[in-house]
Amino acid sequence: MGTKGQVIRCKAAVAWEAGKPLTIEEVEVAPPKAHEVRIKIVATGVCHSDLTFLNEGKDRARTFPMILGHEGAGIVESIGPGVTKCSPGDKVIPLFLSQCGECEPCLRPDTNLCNKNWGFGIQGVMRDGTSRISCKGKEVRQFMSVASFSEYTVVPDISVTKIQEDAPLENVCLLACGVSTGYGAALNSAKVRPGSTCAVFGLGAVGLATVMGCKAAGASRIIAVDVNKDKFPKAKVFGATDFVNPKDHDKPIEQVLAEMTNGGVDFSLECVGKAGVMSSALESCCTAWGTCVIVGYTETQELSVSPMHFLLGRTLKGTYFGGWKSVESVPRLVSDYMNKKLLLDEFVTHTLPLEKVNEAFDLMTSGKSIRTVIKMAE
Amino acid sequence: MGTKGQVIRCKAAVAWEAGKPLTIEEVEVAPPKAHEVRIKIVATGVCHSDLTFLNEGKDRARTFPMILGHEGAGIVESIGPGVTKCSPGDKVIPLFLSQCGECEPCLRPDTNLCNKNWGFGIQGVMRDGTSRISCKGKEVRQFMSVASFSEYTVVPDISVTKIQEDAPLENVCLLACGVSTGYGAALNSAKVRPGSTCAVFGLGAVGLATVMGCKAAGASRIIAVDVNKDKFPKAKVFGATDFVNPKDHDKPIEQVLAEMTNGGVDFSLECVGKAGVMSSALESCCTAWGTCVIVGYTETQELSVSPMHFLLGRTLKGTYFGGWKSVESVPRLVSDYMNKKLLLDEFVTHTLPLEKVNEAFDLMTSGKSIRTVIKMAE
Repeated sequence: MGTKGQVIRCKAAVAWEAGKPLTIEEVEVAPPKAHEVRIKIVATGVCHSDLTFLNEGKDRARTFPMILGHEGAGIVESIGPGVTKCSPGDKVIPLFLSQCGECEPCLRPDTNLCNKNWGFGIQGVMRDGTSRISCKGKEVRQFMSVASFSEYTVVPDISVTKIQEDAPLENVCLLACGVSTGYGAALNSAKVRPGSTCAVFGLGAVGLATVMGCKAAGASRIIAVDVNKDKFPKAKVFGATDFVNPKDHDKPIEQVLAEMTNGGVDFSLECVGKAGVMSSALESCCTAWGTCVIVGYTETQELSVSPMHFLLGRTLKGTYFGGWKSVESVPRLVSDYMNKKLLLDEFVTHTLPLEKVNEAFDLMTSGKSIRTVIKMAE
Repeated sequence: MGTKGQVIRCKAAVAWEAGKPLTIEEVEVAPPKAHEVRIKIVATGVCHSDLTFLNEGKDRARTFPMILGHEGAGIVESIGPGVTKCSPGDKVIPLFLSQCGECEPCLRPDTNLCNKNWGFGIQGVMRDGTSRISCKGKEVRQFMSVASFSEYTVVPDISVTKIQEDAPLENVCLLACGVSTGYGAALNSAKVRPGSTCAVFGLGAVGLATVMGCKAAGASRIIAVDVNKDKFPKAKVFGATDFVNPKDHDKPIEQVLAEMTNGGVDFSLECVGKAGVMSSALESCCTAWGTCVIVGYTETQELSVSPMHFLLGRTLKGTYFGGWKSVESVPRLVSDYMNKKLLLDEFVTHTLPLEKVNEAFDLMTSGKSIRTVIKMAE
């Protein structure tokens, strides 16, 4: 490749400060160092966490400028010394959650939270403490060590996974975050049982993927809950059997669900990221064995709950990337999609060029999109 | 027996109103109706829940007069029609949690919360909606359908279990609540793993039993936490390996424990019943796989927590009667005590007659007793 070992100049959407729109800039992407991989991003989903980071950024002592984007897929451009997992030309998905295979969490069966890149991901840097991307002479941080809102990026080799050659990158990119998170929340974190009744709160991409996970796990009843009734037909496509709009009821949603299910659902999954909805989800699951899983993300809200819910047998847990051990699981999920065991195309409601990334945020916040995929120019 | 079919007049400690001391009264105990068992109580532990009920009673629309006590053991005096599980003369433990063997929770392996007597227990009545005990012409409710602060009581046959003939009732009565709750919290609810590190918050009888459960499960490190350092020698007897008094530290206890354990314990168990301690317990367990179990009881406090704890892999659950299916498990626990697999004598710091039941409450609130056992007069 002609670019190997060279700095690549390309376009990226840069967040210069919290709460402000991204701007398209020419950036410089340095060659990969040891155990790093430089990737030409082909497509990237726009996830709610990108926006949350941007908007909550003010309170959280985050460093800007930053390139957001963590739901990308692309092709390896070049590799640094010591990289054995992939080669130039391979199709890959960069991962915001690493799997080093060596740390204590990686060696345990009950967690996917590899700690090898954790602190670096939060800082938005590689493992030497610096970013590979700069703009106007200034270092630009890489969101979650990824930064897929750039035509090229560099990621640690423990944060990348090779996928099959025939996978369409503009769809499988969604497996880098939202769809895997929801799908795994049902399968791995809630461990939904065949024949059970589930309630899924929030029908964005993560919520719909959660519905799909409940169905895959064999749930016999999947109650889709959203204040936007326009989401219900799509939820049906993914397997929802019942549809509840809290706006249609005078009583609290947990009471509505308890009446529908003779006391509460077996599993409730919160895919909104709001503390009030999390409380409702917890109270919507039944006593004795009900399990509530928090899938939606918030760093700023506090959850207020009665300890009685736990004494009476409810369990509250959460999920991060759906409980999937990232490097080994994503290629299998890609394969499931190729074998039609898992839907992806149905999530994509809009496709836009990188220049319109702010429009993708607007479509998301107004509830008009499920997922917008940004396709990089050829 | 001379008393069969007759009303029995005997002594009981009656709670006439919320927050007031109990008074010793002569009460009338009616014969058992169908599927009920009348028991001569020989001994009863005094549990914190008795006092909590009395003191929180004001806000919870509870009905007085009430006879408290739910940690008793005794001898069957007579049985009503249809009772096949025990006969007059049998040693038994009356249970505040029933096991009917037929309801959905009883048929499931993952919960002990039999729902057959639930509502009646809360109301303090038998399954026909009335109590069997009266005083001065007034019906007296039976706490949790038990009322062991009475020389005689009547309980539903699904709330009683026969135990071995040689069991000393003044010790095994503790298996009716506190010891079973803590011991099972570690074994059944937390499912403490061999080699793990545990933290137990609060070293009353339930906390000490929890320490004993952690040890029985094979925990390699058991950190006992209490603001009363006088509890530590006793905690050592039950298996604690480390002792922390939050008063000895300027930083939050969760930070102290994180530093002691390289990031947090595998299991934390809250045996105090205070929302603030519950938050600390949750934050004391490690990310990725840490499990916090609420064992302490409160109906009036709210717990405030960050959803991030769950997204980062912590699980919050609770326990009720230690997760034991009551009727089938208590005789096995009695047997474990008789075979010296489980300590009971070490919990009993005081023995008092029924007339001194208020003194038992005082000993408990002042932290001077672990367990006081009330022994009925012969």
